[in-house]
Amino acid sequence: MGMTYTARELAERVAGHVEGDPDRRLAGIAPAGNAGPEHLTYVVSEKYARHLASNDAGAALVPPDLEVEANGTTLIRVENPELAFSRLIVLFVPDEDRRPGVHQTAVLETGVSLGVDVAIGPFVVIGRDAMIGDRTEIGPGTVIGSGVTIGNDCSIGPSCTLLKGAVVSDRVRLHAGVRLAVDGFGYASGPEGPVKIPQVGRCVIENDVEIGANSTIDRGSLGDTTVGAGTRIDNLVHIGHNCRIGRNCFIVAQVGIAGSSVVEDGVRLAGQVGLAGHLTVGAGAAVGAQSGVMTDIPAGEVWSGYPARPHRMWLRSTSMFYKLPELVKRIGAFEKTSGKEGP
Amino acid sequence: MGMTYTARELAERVAGHVEGDPDRRLAGIAPAGNAGPEHLTYVVSEKYARHLASNDAGAALVPPDLEVEANGTTLIRVENPELAFSRLIVLFVPDEDRRPGVHQTAVLETGVSLGVDVAIGPFVVIGRDAMIGDRTEIGPGTVIGSGVTIGNDCSIGPSCTLLKGAVVSDRVRLHAGVRLAVDGFGYASGPEGPVKIPQVGRCVIENDVEIGANSTIDRGSLGDTTVGAGTRIDNLVHIGHNCRIGRNCFIVAQVGIAGSSVVEDGVRLAGQVGLAGHLTVGAGAAVGAQSGVMTDIPAGEVWSGYPARPHRMWLRSTSMFYKLPELVKRIGAFEKTSGKEGP
Amino acid sequence: MGMTYTARELAERVAGHVEGDPDRRLAGIAPAGNAGPEHLTYVVSEKYARHLASNDAGAALVPPDLEVEANGTTLIRVENPELAFSRLIVLFVPDEDRRPGVHQTAVLETGVSLGVDVAIGPFVVIGRDAMIGDRTEIGPGTVIGSGVTIGNDCSIGPSCTLLKGAVVSDRVRLHAGVRLAVDGFGYASGPEGPVKIPQVGRCVIENDVEIGANSTIDRGSLGDTTVGAGTRIDNLVHIGHNCRIGRNCFIVAQVGIAGSSVVEDGVRLAGQVGLAGHLTVGAGAAVGAQSGVMTDIPAGEVWSGYPARPHRMWLRSTSMFYKLPELVKRIGAFEKTSGKEGP
Repeated sequence: MGMTYTARELAERVAGHVEGDPDRRLAGIAPAGNAGPEHLTYVVSEKYARHLASNDAGAALVPPDLEVEANGTTLIRVENPELAFSRLIVLFVPDEDRRPGVHQTAVLETGVSLGVDVAIGPFVVIGRDAMIGDRTEIGPGTVIGSGVTIGNDCSIGPSCTLLKGAVVSDRVRLHAGVRLAVDGFGYASGPEGPVKIPQVGRCVIENDVEIGANSTIDRGSLGDTTVGAGTRIDNLVHIGHNCRIGRNCFIVAQVGIAGSSVVEDGVRLAGQVGLAGHLTVGAGAAVGAQSGVMTDIPAGEVWSGYPARPHRMWLRSTSMFYKLPELVKRIGAFEKTSGKEGP
Repeated sequence: MGMTYTARELAERVAGHVEGDPDRRLAGIAPAGNAGPEHLTYVVSEKYARHLASNDAGAALVPPDLEVEANGTTLIRVENPELAFSRLIVLFVPDEDRRPGVHQTAVLETGVSLGVDVAIGPFVVIGRDAMIGDRTEIGPGTVIGSGVTIGNDCSIGPSCTLLKGAVVSDRVRLHAGVRLAVDGFGYASGPEGPVKIPQVGRCVIENDVEIGANSTIDRGSLGDTTVGAGTRIDNLVHIGHNCRIGRNCFIVAQVGIAGSSVVEDGVRLAGQVGLAGHLTVGAGAAVGAQSGVMTDIPAGEVWSGYPARPHRMWLRSTSMFYKLPELVKRIGAFEKTSGKEGP
Repeated sequence: MGMTYTARELAERVAGHVEGDPDRRLAGIAPAGNAGPEHLTYVVSEKYARHLASNDAGAALVPPDLEVEANGTTLIRVENPELAFSRLIVLFVPDEDRRPGVHQTAVLETGVSLGVDVAIGPFVVIGRDAMIGDRTEIGPGTVIGSGVTIGNDCSIGPSCTLLKGAVVSDRVRLHAGVRLAVDGFGYASGPEGPVKIPQVGRCVIENDVEIGANSTIDRGSLGDTTVGAGTRIDNLVHIGHNCRIGRNCFIVAQVGIAGSSVVEDGVRLAGQVGLAGHLTVGAGAAVGAQSGVMTDIPAGEVWSGYPARPHRMWLRSTSMFYKLPELVKRIGAFEKTSGKEGP
């Protein structure tokens, strides 16, 4: 099995303070509700702290001031237990699957440049003149087009497609089935119907972006589609051609963003939100789940609804929507007592 | 070509009763509207029975009491024609594509365990210590992570990804492009912005589950994401981390379920429904297409709308929504005749 | 680098008329805002024409009558600059990645028929008796089932799946991760719960269809699912079994169409639209983004909303939805002044 660590060793790594037995030895991690004597767990509030009173967890990361009935569990007091726990997980669940080197089945065309310590999996295809940065891992079955560049310390695939025009920076993580630099949906009207406009722009993914499984991002039609540094994109998201997505955005599963829209820094789009094309969502704005955005949203505002409006406005109207039957009765009763019938 | 069967032979397999020529020989199947003399078809109601009067179908499965103008077609009376037809289809359209054995191009890492009569296709990758059950088929290009277990009689792929943490039981069917045990969308707030929480839980798929093309299911963050026995999931569905989906649910295309939600047994979610995180849909409940569920739904209820509410409540309010212009006129007229103008 | 062309040469190819230096030599293309002396660009309206006054673009395609401050840029007057530009793009961005021949790693089962000049990429799998037409390209990792037929001049993949039952005509373009002829979501009710109905119909894709990345189209259950000639489908779209999609439709990203629905010729479905099953959208109709269609739509009409209604009706009701709080106040005020309180 894996390594074990004492509570003291763990506390030192996250600048925590031990209460109870510092020599308690931990061999794994578990949620608070399932933790046994060999497990490290964490709690952030009273609600979860109650688990510790009723089980025999080995050790728990807890906030500085939370009252906890420890029941023999060694407590490690830290400012941010969730963050501290995140950092300790890798000790117990190491990534042993990385295989530096190029698998013998991979197909590399001419002019491919590989950084140091890359890990290229089975059945990977890398096109002419593509560049893969240092320590980057390409999972099995991923296809990389000609001229594509990928930076350092990226994790790509398995089964991704990075077509010609994709430009990926450092520490980018693409989950299974992501499609980058797909042709956008662009047609010119010709005399005999629509004519496909060849899509020749780039799809630029900046540092530290994460993109969820089976999401698709179009290349620019002529210029660039860009996703800014630190932005997190969930599964099955669609981003159309020529969109500019800012830095540190959160884009939750199944969101769709039509072509040429601008999403500024720090925006949060909840699940299944749809954005029409050619609009702007201002920096720091947030949009509620399933909303349909058809106009610009000013910076910092929270919007919801279909079509989306400021969240409070939508909330008020929605609450009245579900009281419409009662409202109609009031109007009817009123018309009646006044001797006037409605039309 | 394929095998042929007499109407009598077919009737025996589904406990049916023949009316007409029992020696009629059938060589194929077709919808009632297109059936010719060599075809078996089926009808469930008068609407489709009319086809039989106007064509020369060879034989038709029909309900016990349905009046049919047979026009020479041999009738096979059965309790449930659709079910009986389902069972006879394989006689005419056998699956001849199964190739037991391990294709020479497949890559199996150390410690992989294979059951009897497995069929492993070209360009499959199976990671260290993974286990594949008896008679299970893995389609071309599917990637299976280290330590993944798959039960007996499963049909997986092509082009699926079962990452580390996936645990698949018996008779599970994954269509092309399914992604199991994807990292969930989990971030802790750190001093310099969000920090990815390593996702180390499992993605547990119980017996007889079917999952549609390009659907994605996250692994648990620390515990499990589970899909209960007999649940059917359509194409392009997203299920977030730590969700617990019950047994015998129907989840239609493009549904999205945010993290940590609970969908109890026998729930039906229609197409494009969105469920927020951390909520519960009670056993046997049903949710109408495109609804946005933001609160718990009690067992057995039918809900619809955005935000979702009990279906009748939504229906009533929706019908009035589309009468709002008329309602506003009534109010205006009333204010006028009363000598009071609205604000 | 690539070829260069004079403004005169380019004008001749699109029947344009040169204003300015016909010998200006162009080496590339760029959007109007970024164009330099070596670039061809285009503008369609005053809004973009202003870019030409402030940069030093080499040449620009412009409409016949648009007033342009050329600032040294050679103008090429054409009826439809966007269309003309579309046709010239390939001169500057040639597709050099096509590799006629069959890659040595591809797996072709018995009876496969290949047309002339096909280009079959690495790790492609082609099943028994499949037929691939002349000059068709199959990208890396694409899997083609037994008996599938693909016409001439198609571009398929990478990483697509065309399962048994897929029938693809000429000049069809499938982007990465498309799944054709997937099993539909069909179950018969049996005594012990739902029983899967084997799906044995076809998935017929007519000439000149384009399908976006990670979209999924089910095969017919018994008959056909069809997509008509010239129809364009964007990314992450789902089309259920037995649907009939007409010719020259536009189906934008993340649309979902439930089983057995009919979409007639020339229909436009905007992003994230959902269609219920067994309904008809008439020829030339259009549906607004995110709408939920639950009834037939007559030919030529524009509908929106959830549930969808004629667009003007939805617009009016929606504008009043967001004025409901004000409306309720008016009713309350009125009841008060009349000495009557609401219930």
